[in-house]
Amino acid sequence: MTDIRKVTVVGGGVIGGGWVARFLQNGIDVDVYDPDPEAERKLGGLLDNARRAFARLIEGPKPAPGRLRFRASLEEALAGADFVQESAPERLDLKQRLFAQIDALAPPHVLVASSTSGLLPTELQAPMAHPERLLVAHPFNPVYLVPLVELVGGQKTALQAVERARAFYASLGMKPIVIAKEIDAFVGDRLLEALWREALWLVKDGIATVEEIDDVIRYSFGLRWAQMGLFQVYRIAGGEAGMRHFMAQFGPCLQWPWTKLTDVPELTDELVDTIAEQSDAQARGLSIRELERIRDDNLVSIMRSLARSQKGAGWGAGELLNAYEARLRGGEGDTKAEPLRLHRASVSPDWIDYNGHMTEFRYLQVLGDATDAVLFKLGLDKDYVAGGHSFYTVESHIRHLGQAREGDVLAVETQVLAADAKRLKLFHTISNETTGTVVATGEHLLLHVDAASGRAAPAGEAMAARLEALARDHGALAVPAAAGRRVGEPV
Amino acid sequence: MTDIRKVTVVGGGVIGGGWVARFLQNGIDVDVYDPDPEAERKLGGLLDNARRAFARLIEGPKPAPGRLRFRASLEEALAGADFVQESAPERLDLKQRLFAQIDALAPPHVLVASSTSGLLPTELQAPMAHPERLLVAHPFNPVYLVPLVELVGGQKTALQAVERARAFYASLGMKPIVIAKEIDAFVGDRLLEALWREALWLVKDGIATVEEIDDVIRYSFGLRWAQMGLFQVYRIAGGEAGMRHFMAQFGPCLQWPWTKLTDVPELTDELVDTIAEQSDAQARGLSIRELERIRDDNLVSIMRSLARSQKGAGWGAGELLNAYEARLRGGEGDTKAEPLRLHRASVSPDWIDYNGHMTEFRYLQVLGDATDAVLFKLGLDKDYVAGGHSFYTVESHIRHLGQAREGDVLAVETQVLAADAKRLKLFHTISNETTGTVVATGEHLLLHVDAASGRAAPAGEAMAARLEALARDHGALAVPAAAGRRVGEPV
Repeated sequence: MTDIRKVTVVGGGVIGGGWVARFLQNGIDVDVYDPDPEAERKLGGLLDNARRAFARLIEGPKPAPGRLRFRASLEEALAGADFVQESAPERLDLKQRLFAQIDALAPPHVLVASSTSGLLPTELQAPMAHPERLLVAHPFNPVYLVPLVELVGGQKTALQAVERARAFYASLGMKPIVIAKEIDAFVGDRLLEALWREALWLVKDGIATVEEIDDVIRYSFGLRWAQMGLFQVYRIAGGEAGMRHFMAQFGPCLQWPWTKLTDVPELTDELVDTIAEQSDAQARGLSIRELERIRDDNLVSIMRSLARSQKGAGWGAGELLNAYEARLRGGEGDTKAEPLRLHRASVSPDWIDYNGHMTEFRYLQVLGDATDAVLFKLGLDKDYVAGGHSFYTVESHIRHLGQAREGDVLAVETQVLAADAKRLKLFHTISNETTGTVVATGEHLLLHVDAASGRAAPAGEAMAARLEALARDHGALAVPAAAGRRVGEPV
Repeated sequence: MTDIRKVTVVGGGVIGGGWVARFLQNGIDVDVYDPDPEAERKLGGLLDNARRAFARLIEGPKPAPGRLRFRASLEEALAGADFVQESAPERLDLKQRLFAQIDALAPPHVLVASSTSGLLPTELQAPMAHPERLLVAHPFNPVYLVPLVELVGGQKTALQAVERARAFYASLGMKPIVIAKEIDAFVGDRLLEALWREALWLVKDGIATVEEIDDVIRYSFGLRWAQMGLFQVYRIAGGEAGMRHFMAQFGPCLQWPWTKLTDVPELTDELVDTIAEQSDAQARGLSIRELERIRDDNLVSIMRSLARSQKGAGWGAGELLNAYEARLRGGEGDTKAEPLRLHRASVSPDWIDYNGHMTEFRYLQVLGDATDAVLFKLGLDKDYVAGGHSFYTVESHIRHLGQAREGDVLAVETQVLAADAKRLKLFHTISNETTGTVVATGEHLLLHVDAASGRAAPAGEAMAARLEALARDHGALAVPAAAGRRVGEPV
């Protein structure tokens, strides 16, 4: 992590509010300054959605949220800040005025980042006495889920400021990309702008509706781009000869007069009406808030599916998520004569079945993750597995005692029933913290194995000693009444 | 399904080969004509990857694959064809010559579709005596996974031909979008072309590398576009005021001189070298075949995660996938005095754990899906659940007896141990068909419940009769020795 403990957010709209959520969920305190009298109310709804999404995104432990305060003046909001994130409206004069004020109020070591999606940092820093601390940090909506942040320095920005900002945003689970040269709109919005103009022409000329264009995107290259970008995808399309072949084959298409991008469609009332009406039809009556949740749920699912890619090593945004979770997980302590509490999870939307409850196999996922947490504590890490040994579960018994619904938080307590150099018998109890009830128990027999032969084999000295110590500690606990049951045995 | 049983594929490269895979996996016979003497060898590798991906994409039953034949002449390849898919190189004169030949050889009722990514159907059909049967059906790579196909008719194309083609491609699990007016490059490639040109400028001007541009895409809007398109995403960004507000707020940006798209970068040797070298660096030594598999694995994961979205109803490409699987599943027959065989699944890459085997909870997923298949056969459908009743699993016992690796095919046999109006006790056996071994068994007790009270309640007459008939049929079978075990009980 970094030494940044308190951030001042200037402007609390969709982007500023997204930053507030991202900072709070990482345990950072936030003071907000926004002259809009409605700002606090509007931010509340956004933070609800962000909390809901973050609880699902991170399956392991999460930091205690930071403290949020609204401040009546810029000066109050800046008191004690380590970092300033500005997300005011996109007007150069307004932003320059703000940066001059911030510059006068905050000590020179405080970094100042602008969320502008297109203005040049050299122009933004012009009125500042300490311009070296200003940079652009341009995020993407929803800021609390989408990892990218583009970092762009101006002519007077210190390289050290860019480096400090990069480390800070990376510590928040984000993907900072430092753009080599400042240009209007940087990289992401240049690409989006090009596509947006072409899309407007297609609607204006009656080639396709808003919904058809969206379907073209999400049923084709959108699926590709969630995990690989334009160039990597084309590299594959070029076949074994790779990128040079692709350029030779498709390069000439660039000479064709395909796009109408030499010209900008005029945003007449008629075109705005057409787009607004087609967009209404496409929404099928779903409100913005409902669409926002669907978007967030799907983003979480996609990022989690990418996190499980490559045998759990992750790919792209999923690899980033794994590294972030591992950092949040940190270390574990010693054992005592009390049940282990090593795993919590919240119920994702894609864990729900047609009955409206958490589906059966997700219970075993939670139990299995709790078992993995016990094994991790015992020293079963990647090196241990690479050394040719592991633990395999050979038998499980699950009792379903209650229900869990979307968003509920589950916590697992684990008791070791028996352990020696070859065997480990665990009893997990899953509580639903949201409803205050026990929802399931799991009894599991694991064997220590030699992976090559696939047969049980005694653990080495160190592992055996840890297994025995854990069994000894837990031997003082009462054996749960439900241990040792057959399916359907009378209570 | 449609009445199309045999397709002739003309041109068996990356796109033609992708079509071959898509047709074969839907049980359609394919005759290929490609004058390249290397075509058959090249297609083999592509089909291996496609089979691997399709086995993972579809969790339920799959059709028996169609028969593939290479033919030495266009005439032989066209014999008996119901449909022709042309994927020859992108040269108008070459394609026109081909369509004149196909037109002379194939009876007039045979539909002819071109995979061209930019040529106009009106020009392609010019030399044909039966131009009404020609249309463009433009797919996206990899054709065996990406659902979109753009359908574009020319001036002489019959509306009926477009409709027949639409139904055919939809039956293959694809998303056909009919483009209202023919324009060069249609819709998808217009959008891609706009973005591609801008990306080339960014590399040429040294603003960002190939890898940085790809990261900008896949860590931001690529994640959004896998599930919602450009307009829907902006609708949400506009907040409660929706699209009109977004246009009012961001429309003016279109007047800014942001993009350099008024001009086309010249593909000098220097630019091609820069891109090829940056692309090599980005690939980190992964071969095209390895990247292709990573891409396919991720596409499968993303589509499957979207299929589980919205409480299993699915969203976008996932909703489409659910409908396709339901169609492939079809109906089930009556019960007999033999175990039920209602569920098969193949082991996806994201089912594998750090030991290199299928992870624990996926066994319960396979068992739960098999239970769902039994319940579906008993008449538990959406209407039944909507009527306020369902079955809940209350207790499970799993034995792990073997392993499954990536790509293995699992098949479940189910025996009903007991059933009455309130209870159903099942015993599933999961076999690994790839290794010919039993890998797990599951014993499960389910209760018929009133969903409102969450308590056991007797099933209605019809359901109770079906439960009892199934129990009676299976009463003739021997009880499995492993039924009724405790965890760790001696064998």
